[in-house]
Amino acid sequence: MSLDAGPDFVRRHIGPREQDVATMLGTIGVSSLGALIDKSVPGGIRAGRELDIDAAASEPAVIAELREKASRNRVLTSMIGLGYYGTHTPPVVRRNILENPAWYTAYTPYQPEISQGRLEALLNFQTVVSDLTGLPTAGASLLDEATAVAEAMTLMRRAAKVADDAVLLLDAQVLPQSVAVTQTRAGALGIDVVVADLRDVRDAAGLRAAAGDRDVFGVVVQYPGAAGEVVDWRALTAAAHDAGALVTASTDLLALTLLTPPGEWGADVAVGNSQRFGVPMGFGGPHAGFMSVRSGLERTLPGRLVGVSLDADGAPAYRLALQTREQHIRREKATSNICTAQVLLAVIASMYAVWHGPEGLAQIARDVHGKAVGLAEALRAGGIEPVHKSFFDTLTVAVPGRSDAVVEAALDRGINIWRVDADHVSVSVDETTTDEQLAAVAAAFGVNAPQASDGTEIWDDALVRTSDYLTHPVFNTHHSETGMLRYLRALADRDYALDRGMIPLGSCTMKLNATTEMESITWPEFADLHPFAPADQTVGIRELIDDLEGWLCAITGYDAVSLQPNAGSQGEFAGLLAIHAYHQANGESERNVCLIPASAHGTNAASAVMAGLKVVVVKTAPTGEVDMDDLKLKLKQHGETLAAIMVTYPSTHGVFEDTIAELCDLVHEAGGQVYIDGANLNALVGVAQPGQFGGDVSHLNLHKTFCIPHGGGGPGVGPVAVRSHLAPYLPNHPLSAEAGPDTGVGPVSAAPFGSASILPISWAYVRLMGGAGLTAATETAILSANYVAARLRDSFPVLYAGQSGLIAHECILDLRPLTKESGVTVDDVAKRLIDYGFHAPTMSFPVAGTLMVEPTESESLEELDRFCEAMIAIRAEIQDVIDGKVAAADSVLRHAPHTALSLTADWDHPYTRAEAAYPAGVDPLRKYWAPVRRIDGAYGDRHLICSCPAPEAFED
Amino acid sequence: MSLDAGPDFVRRHIGPREQDVATMLGTIGVSSLGALIDKSVPGGIRAGRELDIDAAASEPAVIAELREKASRNRVLTSMIGLGYYGTHTPPVVRRNILENPAWYTAYTPYQPEISQGRLEALLNFQTVVSDLTGLPTAGASLLDEATAVAEAMTLMRRAAKVADDAVLLLDAQVLPQSVAVTQTRAGALGIDVVVADLRDVRDAAGLRAAAGDRDVFGVVVQYPGAAGEVVDWRALTAAAHDAGALVTASTDLLALTLLTPPGEWGADVAVGNSQRFGVPMGFGGPHAGFMSVRSGLERTLPGRLVGVSLDADGAPAYRLALQTREQHIRREKATSNICTAQVLLAVIASMYAVWHGPEGLAQIARDVHGKAVGLAEALRAGGIEPVHKSFFDTLTVAVPGRSDAVVEAALDRGINIWRVDADHVSVSVDETTTDEQLAAVAAAFGVNAPQASDGTEIWDDALVRTSDYLTHPVFNTHHSETGMLRYLRALADRDYALDRGMIPLGSCTMKLNATTEMESITWPEFADLHPFAPADQTVGIRELIDDLEGWLCAITGYDAVSLQPNAGSQGEFAGLLAIHAYHQANGESERNVCLIPASAHGTNAASAVMAGLKVVVVKTAPTGEVDMDDLKLKLKQHGETLAAIMVTYPSTHGVFEDTIAELCDLVHEAGGQVYIDGANLNALVGVAQPGQFGGDVSHLNLHKTFCIPHGGGGPGVGPVAVRSHLAPYLPNHPLSAEAGPDTGVGPVSAAPFGSASILPISWAYVRLMGGAGLTAATETAILSANYVAARLRDSFPVLYAGQSGLIAHECILDLRPLTKESGVTVDDVAKRLIDYGFHAPTMSFPVAGTLMVEPTESESLEELDRFCEAMIAIRAEIQDVIDGKVAAADSVLRHAPHTALSLTADWDHPYTRAEAAYPAGVDPLRKYWAPVRRIDGAYGDRHLICSCPAPEAFED
Repeated sequence: MSLDAGPDFVRRHIGPREQDVATMLGTIGVSSLGALIDKSVPGGIRAGRELDIDAAASEPAVIAELREKASRNRVLTSMIGLGYYGTHTPPVVRRNILENPAWYTAYTPYQPEISQGRLEALLNFQTVVSDLTGLPTAGASLLDEATAVAEAMTLMRRAAKVADDAVLLLDAQVLPQSVAVTQTRAGALGIDVVVADLRDVRDAAGLRAAAGDRDVFGVVVQYPGAAGEVVDWRALTAAAHDAGALVTASTDLLALTLLTPPGEWGADVAVGNSQRFGVPMGFGGPHAGFMSVRSGLERTLPGRLVGVSLDADGAPAYRLALQTREQHIRREKATSNICTAQVLLAVIASMYAVWHGPEGLAQIARDVHGKAVGLAEALRAGGIEPVHKSFFDTLTVAVPGRSDAVVEAALDRGINIWRVDADHVSVSVDETTTDEQLAAVAAAFGVNAPQASDGTEIWDDALVRTSDYLTHPVFNTHHSETGMLRYLRALADRDYALDRGMIPLGSCTMKLNATTEMESITWPEFADLHPFAPADQTVGIRELIDDLEGWLCAITGYDAVSLQPNAGSQGEFAGLLAIHAYHQANGESERNVCLIPASAHGTNAASAVMAGLKVVVVKTAPTGEVDMDDLKLKLKQHGETLAAIMVTYPSTHGVFEDTIAELCDLVHEAGGQVYIDGANLNALVGVAQPGQFGGDVSHLNLHKTFCIPHGGGGPGVGPVAVRSHLAPYLPNHPLSAEAGPDTGVGPVSAAPFGSASILPISWAYVRLMGGAGLTAATETAILSANYVAARLRDSFPVLYAGQSGLIAHECILDLRPLTKESGVTVDDVAKRLIDYGFHAPTMSFPVAGTLMVEPTESESLEELDRFCEAMIAIRAEIQDVIDGKVAAADSVLRHAPHTALSLTADWDHPYTRAEAAYPAGVDPLRKYWAPVRRIDGAYGDRHLICSCPAPEAFED
Repeated sequence: MSLDAGPDFVRRHIGPREQDVATMLGTIGVSSLGALIDKSVPGGIRAGRELDIDAAASEPAVIAELREKASRNRVLTSMIGLGYYGTHTPPVVRRNILENPAWYTAYTPYQPEISQGRLEALLNFQTVVSDLTGLPTAGASLLDEATAVAEAMTLMRRAAKVADDAVLLLDAQVLPQSVAVTQTRAGALGIDVVVADLRDVRDAAGLRAAAGDRDVFGVVVQYPGAAGEVVDWRALTAAAHDAGALVTASTDLLALTLLTPPGEWGADVAVGNSQRFGVPMGFGGPHAGFMSVRSGLERTLPGRLVGVSLDADGAPAYRLALQTREQHIRREKATSNICTAQVLLAVIASMYAVWHGPEGLAQIARDVHGKAVGLAEALRAGGIEPVHKSFFDTLTVAVPGRSDAVVEAALDRGINIWRVDADHVSVSVDETTTDEQLAAVAAAFGVNAPQASDGTEIWDDALVRTSDYLTHPVFNTHHSETGMLRYLRALADRDYALDRGMIPLGSCTMKLNATTEMESITWPEFADLHPFAPADQTVGIRELIDDLEGWLCAITGYDAVSLQPNAGSQGEFAGLLAIHAYHQANGESERNVCLIPASAHGTNAASAVMAGLKVVVVKTAPTGEVDMDDLKLKLKQHGETLAAIMVTYPSTHGVFEDTIAELCDLVHEAGGQVYIDGANLNALVGVAQPGQFGGDVSHLNLHKTFCIPHGGGGPGVGPVAVRSHLAPYLPNHPLSAEAGPDTGVGPVSAAPFGSASILPISWAYVRLMGGAGLTAATETAILSANYVAARLRDSFPVLYAGQSGLIAHECILDLRPLTKESGVTVDDVAKRLIDYGFHAPTMSFPVAGTLMVEPTESESLEELDRFCEAMIAIRAEIQDVIDGKVAAADSVLRHAPHTALSLTADWDHPYTRAEAAYPAGVDPLRKYWAPVRRIDGAYGDRHLICSCPAPEAFED
C-alpha cells in the first residue's frame, strides 16, 4: 500500500509519507518494510494471509454508512429509568469538551504538570460527589454504577472487622444490573451475596436474620430505590454498624440536591452514576460512576484520587494523590482492579454542575420531582394508586394484568416506560420530560393529563436536605455562556494533548483519534438510546456491534468477542472468568493458579486476584524474555493446579519473543489456558493473530489499537476475545438476552453492551482503513519504533531487542547507567521534555529507571525527529552534569519544567532563561508552557486535600 | 425580567447577574434599569409597547424547532453547477475551524499582534489564489463571485486609459448571477454593460464591434464558461489590450489545477468563488470570493490584503497591508465599498488546499474531469452529443424538446440537473459525485452508465497547465490528520478571540455567539442546498427566512426586509438603491445628493458613491451631535437635489441624540429620505424602532446585533429594512422569483438569499431570547457601557454624552490630552492592553486619538471590572511618563506587547520582566501571550509581500 496515493484516509491516519519510509528504513538499515517485518516478527506466528476485512471506504462513505445504521435505531422518549435518564448536555460543554480534541485526546494525568486543566475539572467532580453525597472524600470516577457497587463490596470487606465468612447484603431495591455485576464479582472471590427486603430491619438481629442467619460485612441500599421509593435507612444503618458491617448507598446525584445525603444518615460509602449530569445515555455508556467515603476510608478508596499539592515555587498544583495505590501495585498483593476511570465523562458531569450551580441543580431537581408528583396525582385522580407514597422521580404503578397493554399504549405515543412484571410498570421523569410527554404517559394509563405541581418534596421531613452544597466559587461563577466558554478554554490551555504534539507513551498507543471516527457519537440516534430500550428500537447499533465483533475476530483469529467490558481491566477479568468457568465445566475446579511474568502490567495480577486465582510470578530472563526455565519449573510445581498463564505479546519489553509458540505449547500441555494480553495488539494487526498462534483468550483495548481517544484517562473499551471452547463463558446480561450466551458468567458491566456509544469510533476506524490499511498501520508503527530506537541508541541504550536486533512497536530507553553516573533521574528527563514541548514517555514501566517510547504509526517523521533531537539534546545536558560542568541539583534538568512566570523572577540558575525555556529545536511560535513547576507529590499526600481548595490558596 | 431566574438562555446570553446589576446601577448613580433607559433614551423615540416577538423557547426546544425546519428541506444531489458545487469539507477542518469558537469568534485582524494565526491562514489563501490564477497578488477574499466581478469592473474602469463613456463587455458565458449583480452595480454608476458572445473576437475592431461600436474599458470572461466550455481567450485578451481595455477572468480554482491559468494567457484580473474548496454550498453562502491581479494593479485591489512585515524584534510578522486603502478612506473620495470579506470561509478554503496539497488537488480535479468525460462518452455512445468538445466538469447537452423530461427523470433519481432552456440541460460533476450518481444521470438521459475515464485533459494543449503551484512547504507538510490538527491548534493559539476574553470594540458589538445558535449551520439539511435548487426542496430554509424577516420588521418597525445583502455594506448599497429608484419612480431623478455626518462610518460614503450619489458632509457639533445648523444649511443648499441623509443611531459617538426626530422631519420636509445605519441597533432593540421614529430605510448587521460571529473578519449579513413605500425597490434575483419583488433593483449578491446558511444563527437568537429577553439584552448593553464610562471617567475623559450625562451602548475615551502631555499614543495603550490580556477597543474611530469601548450585554461584571482595572493601571503607567519617571520611548507602553520569548533576552528596560508580562490583575494561569511584538506596518508596505514567505524568513 502506498502512503501517498492509497485510499484517502489511510494516508491521513499514518504519519510518514512514502519518501519518509525510505529514509527511516535507511536509518534502521533494513531494505524494505517487508524485510523489517520479516526480521522482527517470528515467522512461526505470522498470519499466512491478508486480513479478511472489507476494503477501505472513504470518509464520506463511512459517514453515510453510519447515518444509515443510525437511521435504523428508533429514538423514543425514555422513561425507563433504572439508572439511566434523559439529560440536556449543555451545548457549550458538548462543543468545547466532548467535541474538542484538546480534551478528548489527552492522556491520563500521570504527568500532573501538563494536566492541570483536567485535574481541576476532576477535582470539581470530586467536590460535586463529596458535597452531594455528604461524604468527605470522593474519587475521580469509576467505570459505572454497578462496578462501583462491586468495588464498594470489596472495600467494605477489607474494612469490616467481621468473620471471613460474612456475607454481603443487598436490599431488594438495588438496581438489577448492580446486583448482577456484584454477584459476578462476588462469585469469583467466594463472597456470598444475599438479596433481601431490608426496609424493616431495625437492629443487628434483624440484619442477621435478613442475611439468612449469617454474619454481614456490608450492606448496600439504593437511595432512592430502583422502583422509586425513598426510604429512610437510618435504622438499618445503625443496625449494620452495631453488627460491625459497613453501609453503602447507591444513589442519585440529582435526587441528593433535595434529599438528606447518605453521609448525613450514616452511610460509610456512597456510589452511583453521574450520567444524568449532562452525559447522554448512549445505549449504556460510557458514563462516570462515582464513589465517596467517610473519613477513615479514604486510603482504601479504589481508583484515582485527585489532590492538591504544591509546585517547586510553592504554588498550589493538582496531581493524583496516593498514587502508590494504583501505579505501584504489587503483583501478588493486588486486591482491586483499579487502573480505570471515565475521566472525559466525569469532566462533563462536573461541568454540568459548574454550569448550573447549586441553585440551578436544585431547580432542575424540583422541576423533575414536581412533574413526577403531578403524574402521581393525575393517576390517583384517575383511580390508579402509585405503589409508593414517597418518591423522587420514579413511580411504580400497579396495573393488574395490564402491564403489557400500558407499555404498548405508551409506545404508541413514542414513549418507553418500564414493565416491572405483569401487574406493574414504572415511569421515570427527567429534566427532558415535557408536559406533552407527561400527558401522553397519562393517556397511556387512561387518565387525564397532569397539572403542574410545585415540586415540594413529598417525603418525610427527616429526609429533606437542609445542608448546603457546591458553595465553592467555581460552582457559582461560570453561569453565562461567555464565562463558561472561557473557563473551558483556560483549562484546556493548561494541558498537553495530542493536538499539541507527540505523546510517546509505551504501552498506551497514543495514535490519531480522527474526526470522522468521532463525529457520530454525538448523533442523537446513538447518544439518546436507553440501554434497556426494546430490541426493535436498537437494530442499527446492534448491527454495528455485530460488525465490530466480527471484524475483531477476523483480526485476532479468535472465534467470539464480547464488547461488554468497558475497560481493559474488565476484559481481563471476563477472560479469566471464562477460563475459570471452562475448567469448572471440565471438572477441574482445582485449577486456580495463574502464571504471570514479572514484566506484566499490574492490572494482570489484579484481574487474576479478582477472578479468584492465585498469582505465581514467572521470572524474566536477562534478555528481557520470559525465563523459559523458570516457566518450566513453575509448570512442574503447579501443573495440576495450573489455570492459565497471562502473557503480553509482543512483550511489555516491546519485543517479539521467539519463544511464544513454545510457551503456549508448554502451558497447553500442562492443561492450562493461554491468556494473551492485547495491550500491544497495535504491533500485531494484520501481521499475526493471537487466536491462531496459541492464545485461548485475549482482551483488546479499543482505546489503544482501535482509536477510541483516551479522554484524559477514560473511557476505554476492553473487549474479550476467545476461542470457541471458551465462547459459552463470555459475559451476558440479565436484562438483555442479546448481550451474551445463556451459559455466560454474568455481566461484568452495568450495561449489556458496555460503553456502546463509543463503539462507532472503532467501527469507523476499521471501515476507513480496510484490511490493507490496518496492516500498513501496524507495519508503520513497528517502523517508527525501530527508527526511534536506531536514532537514540547512541544516546541511550535500548534495553531489549529481539534476536534480529529489532524491536516491536515500542522501545525501552535505559537511563539507569546515566542516572548512576550523573544523578539525573528518569523524572528529571520526563519533566525536562515538557520544556521541549513533549509529553514524557512511560516512566519506569516495565523496568524501573527506564523510559518506554511508543511512537505509533500516526506521528510524522518530522515529529519523530523533533522528539529524537530533543532526547539527544537532553543527553547533552546530562553530559554536562557528568562532566561536572553543573551539579545535578542545579541543572536545567532538575529544575524543569520552567513556567513563563518563572522567567520573570530573579534568576540564580547556572543556565540562562533562554536555555531553560527555548532549548534547541523549540519553535517559539509553538511553545507549550507548563502552568506549574515540578509538583511535590509527597507533600500533597501528607496534607491530603481532595476537593476544591479555597480561592485564597491561589493568592501569592 | 430577572437575570437569575428568567428563561434559561437569557441568563446564559447576558453576563451580569441580578445582584451585579444593582452594583452597576450604584456606580452609575441611577436607581433602576428602567430609570437608566428613561434617562438615556429620548422619550420621543421610545417604542410604546413590548416587542411583538414570541416568548423565549429553551435551547433544546429551539434545536427541535430547527430540526423540524431542516426536515422540510429535501437535500438532493446537486449537479446544477453555475458556481456552486458539492465538496467534502475535511472533517478535521470542520471540527477545528468551523465548529471552533477560537476561530469563529475572532474579530477582523486589525490588531495584527494578536491575529497571527488567522493572518497566516489568509496569507495561505492569497497564495492559493495567486498560484492557481497565475497572478502575483491576491486579496484576502471578497464577498462572492458576482460582487468580485463587479469590483473587477470598477477596478478596470479606474485602471483603463480609455474614454469615460467606454463600456464593460461581458462574455455571454459569464455566470448569470454575476451578470445581474454587475448590471445592478453598473447601473448605479452609470456604466453601460454589453453582454455578447466573445469567442470569435480576434482584434480590437472585433472587440469594438462586439460592444456595439463603443469603446471598451474592460472585458470579463468566464473560464470555464457557465455552460462548461473551456475557451482559449488569448486572442480576445490581446485584442482587449490593444484597445486599451483590461481583461478579467472569472474562474474556478479547481479547474485551474489543470488549466493554463489566466495570468499565463494575459488576463489582468482573476476573480471567482472558492466555495468548492471545502465550503458547503449552504443555499448560497457564505463563501469566500476572490480576486488576484497582475503586477502594477496591486495597489488598486479592493478589499483586505495580508502582507508580511517585521515586529519590533525583527521577526517576520503578518498584518493587513496597505490599510490606508480601507480604514482611512476619505468620505468624499470613496471609490469602492471594501470593508468586507469572508475570512472564516477563506480560512477554510485555504486549509482545504493545505490539507490536499497540489498533488491532492490535481487528483481531485482529474477525478472530477474524468467523470465528466466518462459521462460525455456515455451520452455519445447513447447517441446524444454534448454541445462543447472542450470542458472541465460541466456538460451542456442538447435534448431537443426534452429538457423538462430529462430534469424530471433526474429528479426522480434524487439528482438536480440544470434546465438551460427547453432544448438544453447541463450537468456539473464535482468531487462528491459517485459512480452511482453518474449512472443515475445517464439513466435520466436514457443512456448506459459511464465507464471510468482516466481524467486526461481533453482540451487544447495550449490550455494544459504546465506551471507549478502551491510549492510552498505549508501546502506540502500537513497531510496527516495529526499534523493538520496540530497546525490548526498552533494557529488558533496565536490568536485572541472571544473564547479568551473581552473584545470591547466600539461599533462592532462583539457579544456571545452561542453554541445552540451555531449548531445547525453544519447540518446537511442547511449546508448542502444549492441556491438554485427547486423551491419545493427548500421549504424549510425559506420558512426560516420568512420568520426572520418578520421578526426583524417587528424589531425595527419597518415594513419589509431583504436578507439578500451578505454584508452591511451591501445592505447600505441596497438601501440607497431603493431610495434612488423611489425618487426616479416619482420623477425626481435629479435627487442625487446624500448627506453624511462627519462622524459616519467610512462605508456610508463608499456606499453612497457606489449608488451613484454625491456625498455632502454635514459637520459635527462640539458636543458630538450632528450640527443642526450645518444640516439646515446643507438642506438649503441641496434641497432640490437632496436624495437622502445617512445617519447612525445612536450615533457613532455612542450617544442617543435628542435631535433625531427633528433631523428626520427636516430631511423629509426637504423631500429627502432618511437612511438610519443600523450599526448600533444593539442599543435600540426593544427600546426604540428606527422604522417608527423617522427612518425610511436601515440596514442591520446580523453579525453585530444578532449574534452571527465575526469569523475573524467575515461572514456578515446586512439585511436591508424599509418602510412600505420603498418595498418595491428591494433586491431581487433573476434565478429566484421568491427572492424579491418583480419591481426590485436587481440582485446585490450572487445568491438569492445571500448568506442563507448562517441565518439560522440569528433565527435561533431571536427564538432563544424572545421579546423580553431581547429588550433585557439592550438594557444590559446600555447599563454595561455606562458602568464602564462611570468607572473610567476619572482616568480618561469620556468624550461625548447625552443631555442626561449618560451614553448609549458604547463610550469614547479621549486620550488626546494624555497623548499631548505624555507622548503615549492610542496605539501604545492598545498594544499594552494585550499584555493585560485584552483586545483593544476601537482605535481612532470616529475621532482620531480616542478609544471607543462597547462592552455588550454578554460580558460579566467580573470581566468588565478586569478591563476597567487594566485601563486604570495603564493610566498609572502613563502618569509615570507624565511625571518624568520614564520617557515615553522607554516605557512599558511603547514596548508593548511583550512576548514570552522577549523575556529570555537581555533586559535593558527600566521596568522589570514581571511588570512587562504580569502587570497587576493578570492571572498567570490565564495569561495570553502575543506571538510577536509590535509590528512595523510601514516597513511591510514598503516591501510588499503578500504570499507565503519562504521558511528561511523565520530563521534567526
